[in-house]
Amino acid sequence: MRRTEWIAVDWGTSTLRAWTIDHNGQVFQKLQSSSGVSVLMPNEFEATLLELIAPFLDHDAVTTVLCCGMVGARQGWEEAKYSMVPCQTGGIKDAHRVITMDKRLEVVILPGFAQSLPADVMRGEETQIAGFLKWEPNFFGTICLPGTHTKWAQISANEVVSFRTFLTGEIFELLTKHSTLRFNLTTDAWDQAAFLDAVNDALSAPHYFSSRLFEIRSDALLNEIHAETARARLSGFVIGLELAGARAYWLGQDIALIGSSSLCSLYQTALEQQGINSETHDGDDMVLEGLKAAYRSLRLASS
Amino acid sequence: MRRTEWIAVDWGTSTLRAWTIDHNGQVFQKLQSSSGVSVLMPNEFEATLLELIAPFLDHDAVTTVLCCGMVGARQGWEEAKYSMVPCQTGGIKDAHRVITMDKRLEVVILPGFAQSLPADVMRGEETQIAGFLKWEPNFFGTICLPGTHTKWAQISANEVVSFRTFLTGEIFELLTKHSTLRFNLTTDAWDQAAFLDAVNDALSAPHYFSSRLFEIRSDALLNEIHAETARARLSGFVIGLELAGARAYWLGQDIALIGSSSLCSLYQTALEQQGINSETHDGDDMVLEGLKAAYRSLRLASS
Repeated sequence: MRRTEWIAVDWGTSTLRAWTIDHNGQVFQKLQSSSGVSVLMPNEFEATLLELIAPFLDHDAVTTVLCCGMVGARQGWEEAKYSMVPCQTGGIKDAHRVITMDKRLEVVILPGFAQSLPADVMRGEETQIAGFLKWEPNFFGTICLPGTHTKWAQISANEVVSFRTFLTGEIFELLTKHSTLRFNLTTDAWDQAAFLDAVNDALSAPHYFSSRLFEIRSDALLNEIHAETARARLSGFVIGLELAGARAYWLGQDIALIGSSSLCSLYQTALEQQGINSETHDGDDMVLEGLKAAYRSLRLASS
Repeated sequence: MRRTEWIAVDWGTSTLRAWTIDHNGQVFQKLQSSSGVSVLMPNEFEATLLELIAPFLDHDAVTTVLCCGMVGARQGWEEAKYSMVPCQTGGIKDAHRVITMDKRLEVVILPGFAQSLPADVMRGEETQIAGFLKWEPNFFGTICLPGTHTKWAQISANEVVSFRTFLTGEIFELLTKHSTLRFNLTTDAWDQAAFLDAVNDALSAPHYFSSRLFEIRSDALLNEIHAETARARLSGFVIGLELAGARAYWLGQDIALIGSSSLCSLYQTALEQQGINSETHDGDDMVLEGLKAAYRSLRLASS
């Protein structure tokens, strides 16, 4: 069996992901569990982690497990600090060492990033940004990380200068799952023209947002619009509202999108309609790169 | 026992309310059940109604039960038409007669109101408006009906000229019950200054709406703002966003608010801050007046 030098872990609200990495820096196992932070009590983290990675630990050595994400939140395993922006990415200054029962483990949780004004926080995205900046060290501009809580970050000289979070994905999910609109949205089909129209509408008239939502339902009742149109329109309204609020981040900029390919593709077409170019990068690839960079810093610091 | 001449019913999504009315037009029983439209199948409506009102029916006569609200929606008892605005309130032209099993009942469902562009619908609020216009027949201006789906209606010469619905109450409830913010909102206390600041903020910068929502959470994490501040701020953001979209309805107008006193009071202070006067009317009183007016039209039409 290949020996594990260290293990990279991205432990978010709903998913735990781990990569075992050998002495040549190569990933040889990709592990995943649905034991996200939201379903765990603080005293359950160590056992949950061991369940996933125990087969890959040495019996007579200590293996470093380097974590990022909500695992370091107050409701996570143990709270890791926030680094206040503006600050360099990929640092380990505020990293938090967890004292584990199992002596084979050296668990380190990377800090999140925080901002004073407007108050904002991220945990996990800062590591994706660090990974991206390893690939493109001279990047100057804006990174957008679409998701449940979409982040826009302004980057300069390897620093996150400022950032802003939008509740976009969560609003979409709440409306899709729990609202009176939900009956009008049950489809996997997609009406791209309706999506782009709704983005434009919300960009030019964000104040109509909560009225436009009800209009989806009225239009379904009176004009029997299809579920794929209703769903795409809803998505367009929430993304358009976000783009209206994030205008200072994207106007006149080239954008790097980091996230799932389907969501990044929506943002890409929405931005394209505004004349904005963007390139897309896989979120998992970036977070792994970021964890690798942090591991190198950790080894340098301890050598 | 006093004899029932007819029964007024407001049957909404979550509540069924009935008033028994004697031959002098006086209410002598107020009945209420939680069997709202959302928990009933179409074939359950008659039994549900009888369970509530049977003690007040004559055995040897037919009693008129005049209904308004979601009971006339597609997912209700039987679908009643919509009257298209602009149109007079208090009319019975498009009222729908339900053929019941129990021959003691004459059930009539009042039509809702609909609008083509922007597509919009109401069921129940048109009857509250009709009731209000019986009290103030010369009213010219804007009526606002705060609630799960807040309505703004422009009134002229006893007609609803146009109206617009905002998903305000529902967004607030979704965020309070189901979102990641919910942990920061568990209180019944209230920070009025935070509410008014948030209304102002959303009115002047509605495009930041989904960002401000996340900021509530960040502010709770970084600055430990109290739950009463977070909750009032959330309420202010959703109501302020609505006021931004409804500006054409309230700017330079005197407003009549119809609804629950607590919610109307929030709207009243928010509008006052913008220099707008408003008077408040109880929603139950108004719907009962509206049903009484419709009953008189019904009797006139059949005599």
